[in-house]
Amino acid sequence: MKIQIINGPNLNLLGVREKSIYGNTDFETYLQELRRRYTHIQIDYYQSNVEGEIINKLHEIGFSYNGVVLNAGAYTHTSIAIADAIAAINTPVIEVHISNVYKREEFRHSSMLAASCKGVIAGFGMESYRLAIESLLTD
Amino acid sequence: MKIQIINGPNLNLLGVREKSIYGNTDFETYLQELRRRYTHIQIDYYQSNVEGEIINKLHEIGFSYNGVVLNAGAYTHTSIAIADAIAAINTPVIEVHISNVYKREEFRHSSMLAASCKGVIAGFGMESYRLAIESLLTD
Amino acid sequence: MKIQIINGPNLNLLGVREKSIYGNTDFETYLQELRRRYTHIQIDYYQSNVEGEIINKLHEIGFSYNGVVLNAGAYTHTSIAIADAIAAINTPVIEVHISNVYKREEFRHSSMLAASCKGVIAGFGMESYRLAIESLLTD
Amino acid sequence: MKIQIINGPNLNLLGVREKSIYGNTDFETYLQELRRRYTHIQIDYYQSNVEGEIINKLHEIGFSYNGVVLNAGAYTHTSIAIADAIAAINTPVIEVHISNVYKREEFRHSSMLAASCKGVIAGFGMESYRLAIESLLTD
Amino acid sequence: MKIQIINGPNLNLLGVREKSIYGNTDFETYLQELRRRYTHIQIDYYQSNVEGEIINKLHEIGFSYNGVVLNAGAYTHTSIAIADAIAAINTPVIEVHISNVYKREEFRHSSMLAASCKGVIAGFGMESYRLAIESLLTD
Amino acid sequence: MKIQIINGPNLNLLGVREKSIYGNTDFETYLQELRRRYTHIQIDYYQSNVEGEIINKLHEIGFSYNGVVLNAGAYTHTSIAIADAIAAINTPVIEVHISNVYKREEFRHSSMLAASCKGVIAGFGMESYRLAIESLLTD
Amino acid sequence: MKIQIINGPNLNLLGVREKSIYGNTDFETYLQELRRRYTHIQIDYYQSNVEGEIINKLHEIGFSYNGVVLNAGAYTHTSIAIADAIAAINTPVIEVHISNVYKREEFRHSSMLAASCKGVIAGFGMESYRLAIESLLTD
Amino acid sequence: MKIQIINGPNLNLLGVREKSIYGNTDFETYLQELRRRYTHIQIDYYQSNVEGEIINKLHEIGFSYNGVVLNAGAYTHTSIAIADAIAAINTPVIEVHISNVYKREEFRHSSMLAASCKGVIAGFGMESYRLAIESLLTD
Amino acid sequence: MKIQIINGPNLNLLGVREKSIYGNTDFETYLQELRRRYTHIQIDYYQSNVEGEIINKLHEIGFSYNGVVLNAGAYTHTSIAIADAIAAINTPVIEVHISNVYKREEFRHSSMLAASCKGVIAGFGMESYRLAIESLLTD
Amino acid sequence: MKIQIINGPNLNLLGVREKSIYGNTDFETYLQELRRRYTHIQIDYYQSNVEGEIINKLHEIGFSYNGVVLNAGAYTHTSIAIADAIAAINTPVIEVHISNVYKREEFRHSSMLAASCKGVIAGFGMESYRLAIESLLTD
Amino acid sequence: MKIQIINGPNLNLLGVREKSIYGNTDFETYLQELRRRYTHIQIDYYQSNVEGEIINKLHEIGFSYNGVVLNAGAYTHTSIAIADAIAAINTPVIEVHISNVYKREEFRHSSMLAASCKGVIAGFGMESYRLAIESLLTD
Amino acid sequence: MKIQIINGPNLNLLGVREKSIYGNTDFETYLQELRRRYTHIQIDYYQSNVEGEIINKLHEIGFSYNGVVLNAGAYTHTSIAIADAIAAINTPVIEVHISNVYKREEFRHSSMLAASCKGVIAGFGMESYRLAIESLLTD
Repeated sequence: MKIQIINGPNLNLLGVREKSIYGNTDFETYLQELRRRYTHIQIDYYQSNVEGEIINKLHEIGFSYNGVVLNAGAYTHTSIAIADAIAAINTPVIEVHISNVYKREEFRHSSMLAASCKGVIAGFGMESYRLAIESLLTD
Repeated sequence: MKIQIINGPNLNLLGVREKSIYGNTDFETYLQELRRRYTHIQIDYYQSNVEGEIINKLHEIGFSYNGVVLNAGAYTHTSIAIADAIAAINTPVIEVHISNVYKREEFRHSSMLAASCKGVIAGFGMESYRLAIESLLTD
Repeated sequence: MKIQIINGPNLNLLGVREKSIYGNTDFETYLQELRRRYTHIQIDYYQSNVEGEIINKLHEIGFSYNGVVLNAGAYTHTSIAIADAIAAINTPVIEVHISNVYKREEFRHSSMLAASCKGVIAGFGMESYRLAIESLLTD
Repeated sequence: MKIQIINGPNLNLLGVREKSIYGNTDFETYLQELRRRYTHIQIDYYQSNVEGEIINKLHEIGFSYNGVVLNAGAYTHTSIAIADAIAAINTPVIEVHISNVYKREEFRHSSMLAASCKGVIAGFGMESYRLAIESLLTD
Repeated sequence: MKIQIINGPNLNLLGVREKSIYGNTDFETYLQELRRRYTHIQIDYYQSNVEGEIINKLHEIGFSYNGVVLNAGAYTHTSIAIADAIAAINTPVIEVHISNVYKREEFRHSSMLAASCKGVIAGFGMESYRLAIESLLTD
Repeated sequence: MKIQIINGPNLNLLGVREKSIYGNTDFETYLQELRRRYTHIQIDYYQSNVEGEIINKLHEIGFSYNGVVLNAGAYTHTSIAIADAIAAINTPVIEVHISNVYKREEFRHSSMLAASCKGVIAGFGMESYRLAIESLLTD
Repeated sequence: MKIQIINGPNLNLLGVREKSIYGNTDFETYLQELRRRYTHIQIDYYQSNVEGEIINKLHEIGFSYNGVVLNAGAYTHTSIAIADAIAAINTPVIEVHISNVYKREEFRHSSMLAASCKGVIAGFGMESYRLAIESLLTD
Repeated sequence: MKIQIINGPNLNLLGVREKSIYGNTDFETYLQELRRRYTHIQIDYYQSNVEGEIINKLHEIGFSYNGVVLNAGAYTHTSIAIADAIAAINTPVIEVHISNVYKREEFRHSSMLAASCKGVIAGFGMESYRLAIESLLTD
Repeated sequence: MKIQIINGPNLNLLGVREKSIYGNTDFETYLQELRRRYTHIQIDYYQSNVEGEIINKLHEIGFSYNGVVLNAGAYTHTSIAIADAIAAINTPVIEVHISNVYKREEFRHSSMLAASCKGVIAGFGMESYRLAIESLLTD
Repeated sequence: MKIQIINGPNLNLLGVREKSIYGNTDFETYLQELRRRYTHIQIDYYQSNVEGEIINKLHEIGFSYNGVVLNAGAYTHTSIAIADAIAAINTPVIEVHISNVYKREEFRHSSMLAASCKGVIAGFGMESYRLAIESLLTD
Repeated sequence: MKIQIINGPNLNLLGVREKSIYGNTDFETYLQELRRRYTHIQIDYYQSNVEGEIINKLHEIGFSYNGVVLNAGAYTHTSIAIADAIAAINTPVIEVHISNVYKREEFRHSSMLAASCKGVIAGFGMESYRLAIESLLTD
Repeated sequence: MKIQIINGPNLNLLGVREKSIYGNTDFETYLQELRRRYTHIQIDYYQSNVEGEIINKLHEIGFSYNGVVLNAGAYTHTSIAIADAIAAINTPVIEVHISNVYKREEFRHSSMLAASCKGVIAGFGMESYRLAIESLLTD
């Protein structure tokens, strides 16, 4: 089983950026935890700040992987292009957010992507990623 | 550990109502599966079609339980009163939805409750409830 | 043939409340007229001011009755939950209004329920109920 | 007793146009049924695709007939001019629709005419016309 | 003279809930103060989390009491049904709020009820209730 | 000097229709007054309930007359087509209204035509037409 | 007969300011023309850039003069206070504009004042004032 | 104890203006009643139609008085500048309205000032002022 | 092969009206060019300023022609009735515009018709008509 | 003559992605057809999922090529930056869409680019590209 | 060289009012610094809380000074009249703000004035004024 | 002291593109002027048309430089992702614009970035960059 985690813009700064919102763990540390827990799954990781590169990655793995866990960051709220990429591929995509986006600015309450995804998980800190993996396991 | 599941309006008809959206399992059957899986947790279940009774239940268990898994159904999109009840209690509440509400009518895309909840899980069928329980276990 | 009439909030005050809008007949008197006219039909009547109890009633009779004549009063304009209940049951529901709601406040011009109902009849005073029954007879 | 039925744009294609929405009876056939049923009433029929000609007809019969049954089709949603004509005449006008307009596109949910009419009947197929006539009989 | 105080959803938690907003007095304690101060008035108290039960209470006392002091809590901002109940009865109703709702979330700035009430008093803590009683005394 | 007065939908009913708004003079009577007052001007009059016929008339006289006094009635608020006709011709057009449209329904407050006209005169009863003629004389 | 002309903000710069919109006559020169033409009328003139002083002037003359010709300039689009002043006095007020405000920025298309005035005249250059006086003569 | 009452635009016409809304008492008469009732309080009174002069007065007394009772009239709905003045001073300000503004035009339903005030009292006629004074006494 | 070109309101003035937008060729001249180029196709032409007559024409040829090239002019932006006519017939309809409507006023950016047409071609001057014919040839 | 075709996000998946909307031809196959048909034109092709790279390409060829055929995919609806690039270059740009975007989701009905392009062609499948080339030939 | 600084409502309280936003320097102290730094420039200063007096001042100096530095405070967001005054004069005006208005309430994000000014400088504390002077020096 | 200037999409065409708006100096020439003037500061320059690369650059220098002068061009109005990057770094960012964006299209009036920046400077041509540097020097 192969799962791709994709992180969007500014998520390379996790553990450095706005810690009161995102906590102080960097993503690589958390990724090791995930891999230790799900040893039978290949968990690949990709991060980019470029909208189009996220689309490239979705195209690349979207016909062979078993699932995508996507935290598109700010592009969640603006990118029809990523939504189209999700709709274009076969692999199911789970939208995740570390913070509870609904507690934050109005413009973070709506998602351009959610309607093209299988489901949405938001607000559980890093654990949002693990819950998404859980959801893919039980399909 | 005590977890309260609360289902809102029309969810008593699960397995009967609009099966293409909600599947054909009734909730009680699923609840038994959950209890078998999480034998160390007390999982209580409550359903009501009355907005105010959902508030009553939140008040009743909201200072002693460890978590609430709340599928408020249609009240998700209209009830400030339930949102206020969630904010008023101590127990963390997880908002869940069986269907991916973002694929449906516009008025189901916004939630009055999400900003008062710990997090949101939507679109995983009955498994949305289990993922919510998982999230409460790892707190 | 069994038809259920359901009246929503404040309609228990018909004949007492805002007579210039709703007339001065109380509903029970009118109901007797209806029953005298349609002796071959069982016409049941239910009134509640509680949104959730209207849902309960729809669930209760919605798989066995031949039709529902529903005047949901103010809930017409706000209740996704009742709309979901109508969509969940098998019995066709006719939305009726005593007054011509389109002559009144802006917020009474839109109906959350109409899209889930078979049809809408508004503005004929008490006769709106009879026209709804007529419509169910000719199905 | 004299009743005028007025059909607006595209309703001359009933029975030919979008049958899944409007059924496959043409209006003339239905009109014969109506006249057979209400032999004591003079039922006149007029159809036009031109907004202004509908206004002309309303002016022509609006001070002598006992009622108008008006299906203004698409003009329902855009014509202040027809609404003004209805308000200008003495004869009561009933707005009717064959389909349940509230199940269709957003722009069909609002009516410019309803506030000037006596009442609205929508969603009962051809029977919407008969219910309108019934409503005029019981005035 | 008989005055009915009605508190809506979550106000049973006064003194427990969000103390920074609502203070730490529970309502029963404050009610005793009020009764001690206005010994010549019968002050009745009712609280419910159910929208429809608030309507029931308004109907019950709305033709015999001299005034109603209504803090409808969250229903203030959403309930056309309660507004209709206020318009249906004879007793004047004063809308009160403990907090200054205009300092809070946007959705708390508008009231569905105010246009049907005699007046509005907001932002004076528990004293909002007393000012409402004062206003009824001087009528 | 040649001036064309054009009256739009329902203005053929002046003196008959909604007299509290439009007064009880019919337009022909008023027209005679105008012609008696401005004997040196040829004042032509045209009325139609059909939007396209108003356009036809504007095209017909719009390259030879000295001015148009246009009361487009309800089409004022909806017709881009008439606005385009006004912009397409050479003759200056004055928009007039008998009633003060800003005192009436919200949808009568905006004009699709005004930006293409020379000016607007509203609210002076029949005298609005005479003031428009005055304005054309002093150009 | 006494008529008060009131000019609002920036109209003291007529003849100096944005000549392509407002022409190059200053108002005093035009006022002399008006007075020469209407020798039997007392025409008073007042200009202020201060919203409240316009209100003061309306109060001062609003119970004794026969008419007010008001060009409130930019306050036309924002001032509820001036609208209230117009509604509070007995003297009829005519709203005038030199330019055709409907050809200009969106925010100049709506008037807070028009609903409280007798009528509106816009777009005739300085002649808008004379037409307003004409309208007051024929009352 | 020193309390400043400030009345905004057009409130100098109380007793003269729109009596069906504002009653027929002028404010000075009512002020005498207030001073007779609260002999131990210095009640100062100021009225201006000029937005900026209301700000001047708030600055002048806003660091030494015990409370301000402010009926800003039409400026309530438009003035960010007065709201900023209220926020800038130390003295608590109570927003009052004579009429129930929520029964009137839509634009009178929102207040720019309320969020900067201590509380709001509306709809009690002249008594709104007294209730505001009461609220300041019990602080 | 039979193709119907339909031009809506004001397009009879092509070559005369607003030449900076529409060029100075009249349509008949261009039509001759088209017919010379596509000698094997019967190209019929119809122009009307009346919305309902455009509908009549669509009905008349909409079950026998191979294609319609429709420039509905201003009705493009307002006419649900023409949109319904397009949906009611069998012949594919191409929406064309001479000017690039998206460079013009906001209200010209949206089309009521486009969703019922096969496609849209805008901005190529008279050549928009030829491109539409090309598109019908290659079906 | 040199023409540049630019395809935006997800259009590299043509023939693979959502075939019911986009057909099952891949773009390279269609490109060969185009080149065979227009042997005298140099037709260059570029595709990118990255908004900024589309801008780079427009800059690169926008001062030397004779035309650009641009299908910006999802960026059509969101990218001011591409619109600015089109406005910044000299080469005319034609906006094309394979599907009739007006039949799809609301957010696909508006284009940020169209006002900066020469024209728009939408809904003709792959033939939209050929029609755009035709339009460039006849300039 | 002569520069006029104009401060609008509540800016007379700088150093006293909301220090967390505006700092604790009063403007006169800062003005001395400015004058010491720019000894070769005549820097005049004016403050008023009255919208119309700011207009008066702009008219007074707007045809002879070299520049205006305008902090219109709350009037920035509401005053079309001041915007018109800026457009009416010859002297260039720079809009300045002490705080970063975009970090504050939504209604402070838009400026009625900016489109009539030469430029905008916001967020640099008192230094915003100096930067504006710098910008005038380099013209 | 190290300052990073970042220019967004299409700003590589300065001096070539829309000269009436942006002037005819290219940025490199202006940069030399800046460096000559501020010899004691290291001024680095970066331009990209790719949103994500601007984010990359902000991350790269955002923890070591003393200031960023950012002209994000069109991304100013759409990019939440760049706003998040600004909020994530330590270095203060000044938003600059060459043109007065408030004089241009509506969509250029709002900035997604301003609330995360220290301040905004717009409308001073190339000098906007220098004023931003000045502002950083005086911190």
